[in-house]
Amino acid sequence: MKIPQVKGTRDFYPAEMAVRNRIVDGWKRVSQRNGFEEYDGPIFERLEMYQIKSGDEIVDQLFSLKDRGGRNLAIRPEITPTLARMVNQRINSLPRPIKWFSVPRLCRAERPQKGRLREFFQWNIDIIGVDDIRADADVIFTTVDYLRDIGLTANDIVVKISSRRMLAAVLKEIGVPQGSLDSLYAVLDKMNKLPDETFEKMLDELLRDSEMVSKVRTFMGLENIQQIEGMFGRQEAFNELVRLMELLNSMGIGDYYRFDQGIVRGLAYYTGIVFEIYDKASELRAICGGGRYDNLLKDFGGPAISATGMGMGDCVLEILLKEKGLLDIPELEKGLDYFIARVPTVVPFEDHRTPLSVAVQLAAEIRKTDRRVDVSYRLTGSGEPPSLGRQLKEAAARNTEKCIIIGDEFREGKLVVKDMASGEQDMVGYDVFLTDLAGESE
Amino acid sequence: MKIPQVKGTRDFYPAEMAVRNRIVDGWKRVSQRNGFEEYDGPIFERLEMYQIKSGDEIVDQLFSLKDRGGRNLAIRPEITPTLARMVNQRINSLPRPIKWFSVPRLCRAERPQKGRLREFFQWNIDIIGVDDIRADADVIFTTVDYLRDIGLTANDIVVKISSRRMLAAVLKEIGVPQGSLDSLYAVLDKMNKLPDETFEKMLDELLRDSEMVSKVRTFMGLENIQQIEGMFGRQEAFNELVRLMELLNSMGIGDYYRFDQGIVRGLAYYTGIVFEIYDKASELRAICGGGRYDNLLKDFGGPAISATGMGMGDCVLEILLKEKGLLDIPELEKGLDYFIARVPTVVPFEDHRTPLSVAVQLAAEIRKTDRRVDVSYRLTGSGEPPSLGRQLKEAAARNTEKCIIIGDEFREGKLVVKDMASGEQDMVGYDVFLTDLAGESE
Repeated sequence: MKIPQVKGTRDFYPAEMAVRNRIVDGWKRVSQRNGFEEYDGPIFERLEMYQIKSGDEIVDQLFSLKDRGGRNLAIRPEITPTLARMVNQRINSLPRPIKWFSVPRLCRAERPQKGRLREFFQWNIDIIGVDDIRADADVIFTTVDYLRDIGLTANDIVVKISSRRMLAAVLKEIGVPQGSLDSLYAVLDKMNKLPDETFEKMLDELLRDSEMVSKVRTFMGLENIQQIEGMFGRQEAFNELVRLMELLNSMGIGDYYRFDQGIVRGLAYYTGIVFEIYDKASELRAICGGGRYDNLLKDFGGPAISATGMGMGDCVLEILLKEKGLLDIPELEKGLDYFIARVPTVVPFEDHRTPLSVAVQLAAEIRKTDRRVDVSYRLTGSGEPPSLGRQLKEAAARNTEKCIIIGDEFREGKLVVKDMASGEQDMVGYDVFLTDLAGESE
Repeated sequence: MKIPQVKGTRDFYPAEMAVRNRIVDGWKRVSQRNGFEEYDGPIFERLEMYQIKSGDEIVDQLFSLKDRGGRNLAIRPEITPTLARMVNQRINSLPRPIKWFSVPRLCRAERPQKGRLREFFQWNIDIIGVDDIRADADVIFTTVDYLRDIGLTANDIVVKISSRRMLAAVLKEIGVPQGSLDSLYAVLDKMNKLPDETFEKMLDELLRDSEMVSKVRTFMGLENIQQIEGMFGRQEAFNELVRLMELLNSMGIGDYYRFDQGIVRGLAYYTGIVFEIYDKASELRAICGGGRYDNLLKDFGGPAISATGMGMGDCVLEILLKEKGLLDIPELEKGLDYFIARVPTVVPFEDHRTPLSVAVQLAAEIRKTDRRVDVSYRLTGSGEPPSLGRQLKEAAARNTEKCIIIGDEFREGKLVVKDMASGEQDMVGYDVFLTDLAGESE
C-alpha cells in the first residue's frame, strides 16, 4: 500500500537535511554568541492561546485537534504565545533580562506557495524585561550577525526600520481617532504591496476624511528621518530611532539598514521599533520581521513587561541562499573521514583474527575520536568482500577523505592509509596510527 | 487570560533545553561517527500510514486531525512509517546501503506516567539493504557507542539479545501453528513483565495444548545459547547469533551484552535479531529496543528489502542519566565567555565615543570568533550604567568566564580583562586583544 506525503510538507532526505542543519545550526550558534539562551515548548497548545495575540482569523490557519478529554488543541503556528505562557508561569523566579531564542517547527494550514509551506522552521529571538532601545538594537544586530555570517552582504540585503511609536504619535497629531489605529496599521502595512489606487481607496474607506487621508499619505511618503524632524520635530520616539541608528553604527552594521516609513507590521501588538529585512535583488517576501511588543505578557495574564523580538522562517531564506549560491559549500557534502577496506584474498592472521574483525575493531577505536568511519557491507556471492577496487569506489562514492586498507601488511601490524584526493599511500603501524589520531583530537 | 500547558507535554526552559540538547546532540554526533546520515519527515502524515505497521490499536494512541480537504492526518507517533514511505519513493535512485538516522519529535495520546509522556524525542537508526548480520552488529554497536559515550558502563546497562528467526524456527519445530505465531509473540514478549501464573494461563488459552505449552516454557527458560545448541542443534539462525556475538566482541563491547530468550519484541514485524537495553539497577522500562524487520518496505508498497534498526526515547534515558549523576556537568551550565562592563563615571573619550559605544563595538567584534558575549542592559534611574560591582555581580550570575572592563584605561587604548574564577586582572591593548582572540580561534 503506497501512501503519499501530505501536501505542503517536506521530506528531508540527507541532502535536504544538510541544508536545514546548516541554516538551523547557524541560528543556534549566532544566538548563543549574542548571549541568547535556547528554550522550546510543546508542538501543540490549547487552541484559544492562538486567538489572544492574532485574533480569530488565525483559527482558519491552524491545524486543530482534540485531546482525549475533548479539549481543543492546535499545532503551533508561531511560538510567541508559548513564550508568553512560559515566561508568565515563572515570572517571579526567572533572572532578568530574559534573553531567549528558539528554532521551533511550526505549522499553518495555508495554501502552499513559493516561500510559504504548511510546515516550516522559524528562528525566534526575544529580549524580555529591557525597556531600553539597546534591546531593539541587539535584536537587529543578532539578526544581521547571522545573515552576514552565512554570507549575505550589505549589497544583498537591507534592514528596513521604522517606529510604530512614532507613527502612532504622528497619526494622533494628524487627528486619526484612537479606535481606528489598529485597522489603519493593517492598511498601512500593505502600502508597498498594493497598487497606489487601491491603497488610497482603502485609506478613504477607513478614515472618511480626505484631508486626513492626504496628511497620512504625505507622512507615509517621507523618505528619511530628517524630513520627519522637519515636519514633526524631535519627539521622544524620534530620538529613540536616532539612538538606535547610532548603536547599529557602533556595532558595525551601519551599511545594512535604512529608515523606511512603509514598515508598519500588520499585527496590532507592536508598540515601538519595527523592522523587516529584504533581499535587495528579488521579489521575495520579507526574510524576517520583528519589533517591540510591550503588552504581550499582559495579554497572556502576566504583568506589563516590555519585550522586543524577531522571527525568521527557513523557506524564504533558503530560496535566497540558493539564489546567491551560498549553499554550494563542501561542508554540506561531508562524507566519511575514514573508510576501512579489506584485501579480499588475505587469509586469517596468526591470531585467528580476520581482516573483517580487525576492520570493525579499528572502526570502533577511530569512532572514539569522533571521526566518521565505515566498513563496506558488500559481499560477493561466496560471502567474500568485493575487490579492493570496488571498495575504493564505494569509499569515493561516500565522499571519503582517507581509506585504510587491511592487507598482508597487517601481519607486521601495519595499515595502508590512502589519501583519496591525492591518491598518495602511507604505511603506518596500527598503534602509532591510533595514538596520532588521539593526539590530533586533543 | 492565563492558559495552562497541555498535560503530558514539557516546557523546555533553558536548563531543561540544555539537557535535551546534551542528549540529542550526542545522538547526532555518535550516529555520524558510525557512518549514518540524518533524515527527517513532516510532523504529520496520513492517518492510515500508522495502521500498516502497528494495526488499528495505534489509532487510539494518535493525535489525529483533518486537513482542509477533509483528509485524516495524525501527528507522528513513530518515524519508521515515514522512513518506509521516503525510501520507497526514491528506491531506485538512493545509493545503498541506506544508513540513516533521525531524532524526531513524536506524540502519543497515552496516559502520562513515569518515563512515558505524550510528547517526546526518539533517536532512530536504520540500515536498509544489508542482509548480513553485520548490519545488526552495527546497529547494536552504535547504540552502545552512544550510551558509553555519555558515561554508562557495562556495570550500568545490559543489552539483551535474542533472535526472532531462531524463535520462529524452534516454535515451528515444537508444532505451533503458523497462524498463532503473531499472537504468541505478543504473549512471550510479556514473559518477564507478568507473574508466572498469568503468563502460563495466557499460553494455555492461546495454544490449548499442554504439551506444547510445556515445550514453549522450557525453551523460553533456556538461559544461554549453549543450552539451545544442545536441544535444537546448530540451525542457521543459531549460527547467525553466534556470528553477531563474535562481531560485538571484536568491536570491544563484549561485556555489554548477553543472550536473553525473554526478548521477543511485541510487534509482528520483526524477522531476525531483536534486542533491548536495560538499566541493571532500576525498575525502569527498556532504554531502547530494535531488531531486524525484513518486510517493512514491502508492507508500504515497496520492494522486499531487508532492514534493521533501533529506537531510543529521551524520557527513560533522561531519568537514568539523572539517577547516575551523568547530567551534572559544567558544560550544561555554560554561560558567557565574556561580559563587557563599563565604568559608570567615565566621560566620553576624545573621539566622542562613549564607554557604551566602545562596549557594543567590542562585543560585535568578539562575536565574530563565535564567543558568547554580552553587555549589561541595566540602567540607574538617571540612565547611567549601574556600579562596576553590580555589573560584575551580573557577570557572575550569568556564569561568565572573563569580564572586560571599559574605563579610563581606554584613553590609552587599553582594556582591563578580569578572570572571574581567579579574580586576576590583566591590562591588554584593544587591537592586541582582538588579534590574540582571532589567533586562538584558528
